[in-house]
Amino acid sequence: MEKITIVKVGGKIVEDEKSLQQLLTDFSTIAGNKILVHGGGRSATKIAEKLGIESQMVDGRRITDAETLKVVTMVYAGLVNKNIVAKLQAHNINALGLTGADMNVILSDKRPVKEIDYGFVGDVSLVNAEALIDVLKQNIVPVLSPITHDGKGNLLNTNADTIAGEVAKSLSYDYDVTLIYCFEKKGVLQDENDDNSIIPEIDEDLFKQYVEEGIISGGMIPKLENAFQALNFGVRTIIITEASEICTGKGTYIIKNEELRMKN
Amino acid sequence: MEKITIVKVGGKIVEDEKSLQQLLTDFSTIAGNKILVHGGGRSATKIAEKLGIESQMVDGRRITDAETLKVVTMVYAGLVNKNIVAKLQAHNINALGLTGADMNVILSDKRPVKEIDYGFVGDVSLVNAEALIDVLKQNIVPVLSPITHDGKGNLLNTNADTIAGEVAKSLSYDYDVTLIYCFEKKGVLQDENDDNSIIPEIDEDLFKQYVEEGIISGGMIPKLENAFQALNFGVRTIIITEASEICTGKGTYIIKNEELRMKN
Repeated sequence: MEKITIVKVGGKIVEDEKSLQQLLTDFSTIAGNKILVHGGGRSATKIAEKLGIESQMVDGRRITDAETLKVVTMVYAGLVNKNIVAKLQAHNINALGLTGADMNVILSDKRPVKEIDYGFVGDVSLVNAEALIDVLKQNIVPVLSPITHDGKGNLLNTNADTIAGEVAKSLSYDYDVTLIYCFEKKGVLQDENDDNSIIPEIDEDLFKQYVEEGIISGGMIPKLENAFQALNFGVRTIIITEASEICTGKGTYIIKNEELRMKN
Repeated sequence: MEKITIVKVGGKIVEDEKSLQQLLTDFSTIAGNKILVHGGGRSATKIAEKLGIESQMVDGRRITDAETLKVVTMVYAGLVNKNIVAKLQAHNINALGLTGADMNVILSDKRPVKEIDYGFVGDVSLVNAEALIDVLKQNIVPVLSPITHDGKGNLLNTNADTIAGEVAKSLSYDYDVTLIYCFEKKGVLQDENDDNSIIPEIDEDLFKQYVEEGIISGGMIPKLENAFQALNFGVRTIIITEASEICTGKGTYIIKNEELRMKN
């Protein structure tokens, strides 16, 4: 099976010119098929503020009203995405910036209103792996922004971690997928005050234990839940690490229960 | 030779929900290969204003400083482009929104500073026809926003009329190209106060005569110069018309001198 590396980076990395340049330099050196998935939350918040639109967040997820949807479309699919694409081209990477609407690559459903009305937020319903594979076969590198569409003409704001996970899953039939989630630490930490307390490997049992013990909390919980779902679906390798480590193989590896048991 | 239709629409059409919907409905009915090139000037001006960035225009061209470049990238490549793409998908058109940086489709050079420093404005240096043809062969419809890149990592603001003309020229080796420039009138008018005084056909001699007589003036001059350049390069059919007429064949036809002479 051919290999593919899917790297997901958050807003903090892509907003800072220096860290973005470093990331793209590292990303360029990854051999073979690859996809970059980016966020861009903080610039959206800043620009929304300047435009007089208040950003409402619930559990780290943005409430997306019609005006906010315009802002995230501008910032994620325009400013952030196209700057990454232009910079990758300068690294001789034939990048192609995409939202889910482009070539219909990611369809989503507007999240149903329960306790919270998230507004124009989409939950991924289908990844068009065939379209992505056509692109990859031409040695083109997709750069995915966290905007999808419902197929009825509406764009929807979609969590970038989820996009990375769903794309990884959809490609796992045809590729040996390595999925790298970058965040601000060198891995999942045993002690949040000690940057070197990286948990080298984590399976679902350990994850549950750490959540109970409060070692893992907050935004790391949905991130890991996403990761385990992708792993169980067939994604071969999943790593949570710092953006500067995408080429080193360092970080926390998400593994199946039996793998850890076999080792011990 | 296979046919292709390239439609260029300005900001006024794409900003108004109703006229945009009508345009996309009409565009959807065009058979065979097609490309949509859009502007989006007015929304950029409005959003720049809200962000406290002053829009400077010289002869209808925007002076693009670093902050303005961010705004046009957001508005053209993000907001306008992705909304068009999502809406075309709803019309079962497999659209793909592109800047010149995506798949390196359009390279440009930063305009040299002479009397005026246009800032981050690019003059098209190369259209990668091969990449566009690969896309077209997959029955994908490119939607081009007026942002290009210099290949060194920089995005550049580029006139949408010029992009349409250059893309048409580059595809004229492989396709029988029809290039339709849409603007607010039903064609080039003999009398600007009479919307029905459409000049049915115009060649370069007549164009020069009309410019001398003041019948053609302002922004129509560079538009027609672009058109004649494309015609002389090998673009088969060029029409200047209203957005609502892209399927009717009505409007002003740009033709070669000898064609008009042969008819008379």
